[in-house]
Amino acid sequence: MSAHLDAIGNVCGRYEGEKPNLPCLMLGSHYDTVRDAGKWDGPLGLLTAISCVADLNRRGRRSPFAIEVTGFADEEGVRFASTLLGSRAVAGTFDESVLNVRDADGIPMREALRTFGLDPDHIGAAARARRELLAYLELHIEQGPVLEQENLPVGVVTAIAGATRLAARLSGMAGHAGTVPMAMRRDALTGAAECIGAIEEFCRTDTDGLVGTVGYIHALPGATNVIPGQASFTIDIRAPTDAHRKLAVTDIVRRIEAIAKRRHLSLQLDVTHENRTVPCALWLKAQVADAIAGEGFRVFELPSGAGHDGMAMIDVADVGMIFVRCRGGISHHPAEHVELADVDAGARVLLRLIENFTPRDAVG
Amino acid sequence: MSAHLDAIGNVCGRYEGEKPNLPCLMLGSHYDTVRDAGKWDGPLGLLTAISCVADLNRRGRRSPFAIEVTGFADEEGVRFASTLLGSRAVAGTFDESVLNVRDADGIPMREALRTFGLDPDHIGAAARARRELLAYLELHIEQGPVLEQENLPVGVVTAIAGATRLAARLSGMAGHAGTVPMAMRRDALTGAAECIGAIEEFCRTDTDGLVGTVGYIHALPGATNVIPGQASFTIDIRAPTDAHRKLAVTDIVRRIEAIAKRRHLSLQLDVTHENRTVPCALWLKAQVADAIAGEGFRVFELPSGAGHDGMAMIDVADVGMIFVRCRGGISHHPAEHVELADVDAGARVLLRLIENFTPRDAVG
Repeated sequence: MSAHLDAIGNVCGRYEGEKPNLPCLMLGSHYDTVRDAGKWDGPLGLLTAISCVADLNRRGRRSPFAIEVTGFADEEGVRFASTLLGSRAVAGTFDESVLNVRDADGIPMREALRTFGLDPDHIGAAARARRELLAYLELHIEQGPVLEQENLPVGVVTAIAGATRLAARLSGMAGHAGTVPMAMRRDALTGAAECIGAIEEFCRTDTDGLVGTVGYIHALPGATNVIPGQASFTIDIRAPTDAHRKLAVTDIVRRIEAIAKRRHLSLQLDVTHENRTVPCALWLKAQVADAIAGEGFRVFELPSGAGHDGMAMIDVADVGMIFVRCRGGISHHPAEHVELADVDAGARVLLRLIENFTPRDAVG
Repeated sequence: MSAHLDAIGNVCGRYEGEKPNLPCLMLGSHYDTVRDAGKWDGPLGLLTAISCVADLNRRGRRSPFAIEVTGFADEEGVRFASTLLGSRAVAGTFDESVLNVRDADGIPMREALRTFGLDPDHIGAAARARRELLAYLELHIEQGPVLEQENLPVGVVTAIAGATRLAARLSGMAGHAGTVPMAMRRDALTGAAECIGAIEEFCRTDTDGLVGTVGYIHALPGATNVIPGQASFTIDIRAPTDAHRKLAVTDIVRRIEAIAKRRHLSLQLDVTHENRTVPCALWLKAQVADAIAGEGFRVFELPSGAGHDGMAMIDVADVGMIFVRCRGGISHHPAEHVELADVDAGARVLLRLIENFTPRDAVG
């Protein structure tokens, strides 16, 4: 491959096809990770892609399209709390205002890029045109327990689930834990507990992949012998389609409002974050499925609950994803692990997919 | 009154009876308070007692018993996290080992007492003998909303409710909020929420004054997009009798254990604190009730959910208490308030009680 570093720090390799300057099938994943993490989240997709190109090169195979492998910079957003920097630059949706965001030491992103030897004034040059890309294809560890439970090494990703995050605050009346009879209480924490139960119940009875999580809770004043006057908590709702997620959010909000009203608690409920769902292209899903079946594995579809570079790449190309099983669904943790046999299975599926790849316009 | 400061810092006044050295009716409350609090919690009981003695003195009245007014030191335990210091010294149950406890600045209580001019080696001399005390009687603000709801200025306290405090920790499995299907989760916080709901439901359906409070909760790792792997919370259970409280604690523990088991969460549940119930003496309750009726108010009985010096004084004397209505049940807060008309009502009840006081041995 010919390789270069672009202005945001993506490492870009290009393996020409049968003739120069053909549009490419882009393979990729991110090379950054979070702190105190495992070594598979991101790099696995890059190393398997490079291995596939190396194998094609060893065998002297050239395709009727180019192959590019992109190692995306800063998908996780650890240092500047802004995600998908590399893939947004490639998709042409990089927001230049984030160059002024400072890290914990007060260093602006613009300065950090320059110190590293990059030119933040030319990030626009990293953007690719839709006509240059036949598709964007990513292999990634699942970061969840579903493939393990299904006893499968690989799976077809149906969509990168959108997410809505909300911040809720219930306010009642603080009081002495000994002196206020139960019937006279306006306990913000028992109200929050009922909301948490309602969210869980609502998502648990859904049959279309809806998940809802309360990850953070804080009760004030927070003393053993004081009835909480205020309780704050977060809600994270994800579903494989935007329509499903939005309906669910509406329904959950209505339930929380009803609980607050019945308990005479005041409620502040704000949407703090919203990500659209990125569906994987049907024609790419079909080719991923064929490659999996071709390698002798049962074809199993699952959504991605976690975010990936495809969330940015959808703006410049159709997106397909292959998931590889990881032990216990554990990720963002040193215990993150993928069996070598599963790495091999993933790489073989990817190679078969590349060798049989048919661009959308050529699909019958 | 002749007055002195004892070795723990109690301010002790004595108004002799018809002749010197008679056993006394002890009136009292504490003169310390918590930080950022109101001015009524404690001092109201002292000022009304002193006013009653002043009135008797003005009228030249002497009773067939002495009257003592004790301003107890450090009931709240703010500085050394050890409560009822003054009343325990008077009751002869002061634990000398707390003299070595240090405050937030590292100063031991022993040193703090010396700096104030007291002699910690003579705290034992503050102890009174049971034969010296005919009863211990305390007027205090309710610190709860019950008298306000009953539209009454004063009430007869039945008992100082005992309390059991527990610390619970549920452990499940942390995971990505997007990647773990609802059915595969072992979410410690949804488990804790169900426990909080069960505690509330159990106490709410009790008809004998049981109260249960979860005042503190903490979920780990505590991020919006991570399923909590651990949730810790406190439980505070109070009831007017020890038997009732102990049965309730047993039942609540059983429910929490069942919730943890069903959800495949591991549970650590420890009793961190236990206070016996201190019943007010029947013969004193009857005299408090007579005084309230004599002042023209409806007699209403209620337990005290908060702790008071009577919890220590029970070891040396029978205990009686009068509650005075406070606005909104608010205490330990600058908004704590008592109407002057209610202060007057409380003082008149106390004075009537003193003037009609009949020692237990003389009660028919």
